[in-house]
Amino acid sequence: LKRSFIREILEHTNSNTISFAGGLPDPSLFPTKELKECTKKVFEDTSSLQYGNSMGYLPLRNHIAQFYTKKGFPTSKDNILITTGSQQALDIICRYYSGSTITIERPSYLGALNIFKLNNMLIQTVKLTKNGIDINLLKKSIKNSKLTYLIPDFQNPSSICYTKFNRLEVAKLLDSSNTILIEDSPYSQLYFETQQKPISWLLEDKSYHIGSFSKILSPSLRVGWIRANKKLLEPLVAYKEAMDLHTSVITQKIIYEYLKDAQTLELHLNKLRVKYKEKMLYFSKELDCYLPSFSYEKPKGGMFIYGALENIDTSKFLQKCLQNGVVYVPGIEFGGEYNEIRFNFTNNSLQDITKGLKRIKKSLEETI
Amino acid sequence: LKRSFIREILEHTNSNTISFAGGLPDPSLFPTKELKECTKKVFEDTSSLQYGNSMGYLPLRNHIAQFYTKKGFPTSKDNILITTGSQQALDIICRYYSGSTITIERPSYLGALNIFKLNNMLIQTVKLTKNGIDINLLKKSIKNSKLTYLIPDFQNPSSICYTKFNRLEVAKLLDSSNTILIEDSPYSQLYFETQQKPISWLLEDKSYHIGSFSKILSPSLRVGWIRANKKLLEPLVAYKEAMDLHTSVITQKIIYEYLKDAQTLELHLNKLRVKYKEKMLYFSKELDCYLPSFSYEKPKGGMFIYGALENIDTSKFLQKCLQNGVVYVPGIEFGGEYNEIRFNFTNNSLQDITKGLKRIKKSLEETI
Repeated sequence: LKRSFIREILEHTNSNTISFAGGLPDPSLFPTKELKECTKKVFEDTSSLQYGNSMGYLPLRNHIAQFYTKKGFPTSKDNILITTGSQQALDIICRYYSGSTITIERPSYLGALNIFKLNNMLIQTVKLTKNGIDINLLKKSIKNSKLTYLIPDFQNPSSICYTKFNRLEVAKLLDSSNTILIEDSPYSQLYFETQQKPISWLLEDKSYHIGSFSKILSPSLRVGWIRANKKLLEPLVAYKEAMDLHTSVITQKIIYEYLKDAQTLELHLNKLRVKYKEKMLYFSKELDCYLPSFSYEKPKGGMFIYGALENIDTSKFLQKCLQNGVVYVPGIEFGGEYNEIRFNFTNNSLQDITKGLKRIKKSLEETI
Repeated sequence: LKRSFIREILEHTNSNTISFAGGLPDPSLFPTKELKECTKKVFEDTSSLQYGNSMGYLPLRNHIAQFYTKKGFPTSKDNILITTGSQQALDIICRYYSGSTITIERPSYLGALNIFKLNNMLIQTVKLTKNGIDINLLKKSIKNSKLTYLIPDFQNPSSICYTKFNRLEVAKLLDSSNTILIEDSPYSQLYFETQQKPISWLLEDKSYHIGSFSKILSPSLRVGWIRANKKLLEPLVAYKEAMDLHTSVITQKIIYEYLKDAQTLELHLNKLRVKYKEKMLYFSKELDCYLPSFSYEKPKGGMFIYGALENIDTSKFLQKCLQNGVVYVPGIEFGGEYNEIRFNFTNNSLQDITKGLKRIKKSLEETI
């Protein structure tokens, strides 16, 4: 097993490097003050420091269940398993099905690819289209797939958001098959205009829906969850327990305190949506100015701009960029094309976005 | 994979049940106030909420390394990998060696047995003696073992502490073999009189030493670590990363703030040692009073009293105890004898210890 390209890069850049590589939130938008207040309350109760339940902190499980139910997707606490980030959520599921065949999008999330390798899964990829996944190719692939792993909301790395029609088609197809859906949705709340319904909603008995607080609150909390029907969820608890007993009660309680007032999260999310849209538009404007040969579609949410740099091998080109103090992730790392790039637009300040893109422009001039 | 007996029991008892089952610390001894103060400082820095490094928070790794070095076991940050509790530490190692043969103590830690099953390991057990592990039997077992898993300090469940001589014998034996030692040491700081040196110290190139803050600070933090030489440690980082990216930066920083003043932890540990010894002596006195047919040796540290209840099948007997509002873990769950019991003596108040043991006495009277 090899380490992830992004995490290795992140650990080897110096403080002057501008990184468009990781899927990092904008640190200036963390609700630091509010979380600090919540933490004070958490430490007023000694039980916050004791061992917790393997399925997670009950009030938080209830809260997440209500969140689904309010949106129209009936869910109870028995459908929610708290995990140490959504990375662990995916690993728990894949460990349970280890050695199975899995159909995934091409390109797909790097951290997921490592989990599939770690669990000896046979990977079959299906190309993404502008509207979601290619239904005809998916139909062929799932014939011998136990699992299908999709990121329908502002997909990582492509930022594609499946259309309503595409979601219905996927649900219909999977419903008549023997494959189980793993729907990963870390970016679903980060929409700029409209939100789509999860595919799992239409596939209640055949789906795992994975959620996370990393992109909407703080990745450092390491709290995510799996939503599934009881029959699918129950066998996973023994895995979760063997893997790390339970997720930190402290971080779970901090989140619960934060969520107690229904308005707090909604206001924060609205702020994130507005700010991230602004940043995306700014990044896009600067891209068009400094890298006019980069072709892409503006995303409708999420954290990434994905596209292709005409005739450039973006893996080789990265070395030059690294020398000039700027990094990104080449598309090939996700199973994409040799000339593709994923840019994160959320993490850097506006000044650094411009500075970083200027450095890429300079690297390009030095290359050609 | 089945869930752990203890964790299932803990989730199904009601608030009136007195539990001697889990390895839970005394909640009244948590340094709640100090940890609360540390947490305030952590939230003053926005980077506490961002993604962290897979190997762990560097200042904490340095601190743990110094801790070893000061005791005479030279260690640098490159020898330390932070994990989400020591449960994950063991899982990471076993996942790397999945499918291997492993020699373990009989009886052994329940949570470890689940990890070995999860990683398809072939388990060979070696009986414990009063002084540690049976060297002759160990010699036979390790001939075809890739790994040897030991808990030399106040072993779980037996509370046996390996003698200095036994440690030297184990080290000599393993040094001349092809087996790698996994030394699990969650209780090593909880000694009542003297501390023994880790076996890993004598086996630097062939050992993983696993540590944890769960028993000495708070289990809810979910922070543990692996100490190993670089060659053994490096391949594990990709596993850690695939499993949950990294351990919560918030909880790591809370611990780092707590450790900054060298005196704080030492004072806290001294307090734990005194209080836990008092509790052990109290538990022992009450045992002798209410259950005179229970035979055991007083432990010299740790959290458990382990022994045998004459002619009683302690698994069957547990049902009766459960009805009477008291639980423990039958030895058979750890691979021990049918009539053995593990009692945790740290978690309950003195009143509840007496109350619980009276309930067992009552159950015994109703049985015979």
